[in-house]
Amino acid sequence: MKVLITGGAGFLGQRLARELLARGELKGTDGQRQPITELVLLDVVAAQGPNDERVRVEVGDIAERSVLERLIDDKTAAIFHLAAIVSGQAEADFELGMRINLDASRLLLDVCRARGHRPRVLFTSSVAVYGGDLPDVVLDETALNPQSSYGAQKAGAELLLNDYARRGFVDGRVLRLPTISVRPGKPNAAASSFASGIIREPLTGEPAVCPVSGSTRLWLLSPRKAIECLIAGSEIDSAALGKSRTVNLPGVSVTVDEMVAALREVAGEAVAARIEWKADERVEKIVGSWPARWDVSRATQLGLHGDASFKDIVRAFIDDELGGKIPQH
Amino acid sequence: MKVLITGGAGFLGQRLARELLARGELKGTDGQRQPITELVLLDVVAAQGPNDERVRVEVGDIAERSVLERLIDDKTAAIFHLAAIVSGQAEADFELGMRINLDASRLLLDVCRARGHRPRVLFTSSVAVYGGDLPDVVLDETALNPQSSYGAQKAGAELLLNDYARRGFVDGRVLRLPTISVRPGKPNAAASSFASGIIREPLTGEPAVCPVSGSTRLWLLSPRKAIECLIAGSEIDSAALGKSRTVNLPGVSVTVDEMVAALREVAGEAVAARIEWKADERVEKIVGSWPARWDVSRATQLGLHGDASFKDIVRAFIDDELGGKIPQH
Repeated sequence: MKVLITGGAGFLGQRLARELLARGELKGTDGQRQPITELVLLDVVAAQGPNDERVRVEVGDIAERSVLERLIDDKTAAIFHLAAIVSGQAEADFELGMRINLDASRLLLDVCRARGHRPRVLFTSSVAVYGGDLPDVVLDETALNPQSSYGAQKAGAELLLNDYARRGFVDGRVLRLPTISVRPGKPNAAASSFASGIIREPLTGEPAVCPVSGSTRLWLLSPRKAIECLIAGSEIDSAALGKSRTVNLPGVSVTVDEMVAALREVAGEAVAARIEWKADERVEKIVGSWPARWDVSRATQLGLHGDASFKDIVRAFIDDELGGKIPQH
Repeated sequence: MKVLITGGAGFLGQRLARELLARGELKGTDGQRQPITELVLLDVVAAQGPNDERVRVEVGDIAERSVLERLIDDKTAAIFHLAAIVSGQAEADFELGMRINLDASRLLLDVCRARGHRPRVLFTSSVAVYGGDLPDVVLDETALNPQSSYGAQKAGAELLLNDYARRGFVDGRVLRLPTISVRPGKPNAAASSFASGIIREPLTGEPAVCPVSGSTRLWLLSPRKAIECLIAGSEIDSAALGKSRTVNLPGVSVTVDEMVAALREVAGEAVAARIEWKADERVEKIVGSWPARWDVSRATQLGLHGDASFKDIVRAFIDDELGGKIPQH
């Protein structure tokens, strides 16, 4: 079987690719695990890896139908649609956000519909679909009320996937991801970028700016657990999903102060002292509209699990990205 | 000021036009009531009325940008977007439903955005955005989970309007209408068409088929109250809407058996006996997924009111459409 990852050059796409290649198989359209013979990594820039003969690197604009038509055929049994314009950028460039987060998602569903072979399609969505006056704990039955264009676009894509799945055009599922922390690499234009930066930069000897107050509460998932959830999510039997194809993934609920305390405990005061506090109203407004905690019983029932604590998340970052050691500075 | 009604040849569009002309004024972009100097009725067929010099009848495809660009200018201070493909038809013709219910709604918002004058824009939405495992009473905080393409498309349009309003592109609001009963005229392709037919046809001496069981519970609003709500909804100050531009309108919660009992009480046994019961699984499935009751405190606070009872709805139909008398057969 073929597998397609959109956003395949991105951080999650790359990690997912490595894990899929290591496992070597995935559930196909018939519900049986099959060998992955081709793994297509689509992105606007060429994916730099993994170096494996099953990998096919493709560069293209996901909002162009011809690109998707070229890459999705009746052997494409599973699709992971990760490509997105992040929250801060979607707020700054409305049209670009609409084009990638909403239109490209619809196009992908439409190309699958035209093919007619009902592939497994997994969309990633986000805490940002929630907002407004939220209950303390968000339930599956809590109404979406996005307070950002990113959230509105993701919520729209969720609705489309659910309807395309209900009609039998795709075997779809949406996983709403907590904020991913700790991401490796550089800061990005996501409003939540700091949720990785305030851990990653200090650990690698760099200063970091925290644009929100210490009492800001976040809902976090490590990259490692996120990848496990993406694969398990793709393999859930559609019957188990019932009348909604959307699942809220489990996270760890922590305040920024608690994150810094965990960093201090794991890496010491000198590392934690590299954080500079400098409020950014735009970021606070977006991040503050997201829920910090949601009921995860549905995810748990479906076999999707998160991290045990934020300290575990920090340690996983050190293990996965720093070779298990905190660099000395 | 100019006012635009899409779906202006339809039943609600025509009634709304008559009421607006009778009132003669409406709140404009500055929040002050102004005389309506032009009332544009756009539809795919030519509106047959009202006969008034302020009315401009326009025929065009609302999913074509040029049509909307021609009809929306900076004097267009209020827009009522009623044009839609009804539930049964949107389920039967997926692409048509997407084009009119979702794409045209977005196009309308985009043309307003390009104009930059932030008109009042009212979208009508529907009970059909709800579905799945619903609480007994739907709250404003209840998650949308449409089980029809019509509901998914309406929910998508709601999300877009909310985001365009949040960004200041339009002064938008969405009213979720209960099922409108009793509509005059012919049956249509809406799954809920019977909710008018089983009252209208017997009252005018015709047989009617009821495709759902008598225990099916509906959430109903008379055309008269719907029009009052549309106008009041357009005039709500945007500040009063808070972080959500969507309002669930008040309805009357009745079973089909109770509807028939009300008809019998108002019009007699001979009239009620004209209903033939013939289950239609397709209709039962769609209608059965809709909520039959929702919390209306937000609507009430905003000054939007429904009918007192279904008997009142039957009597209003006789008054408004049958000249106050039940025809003898």
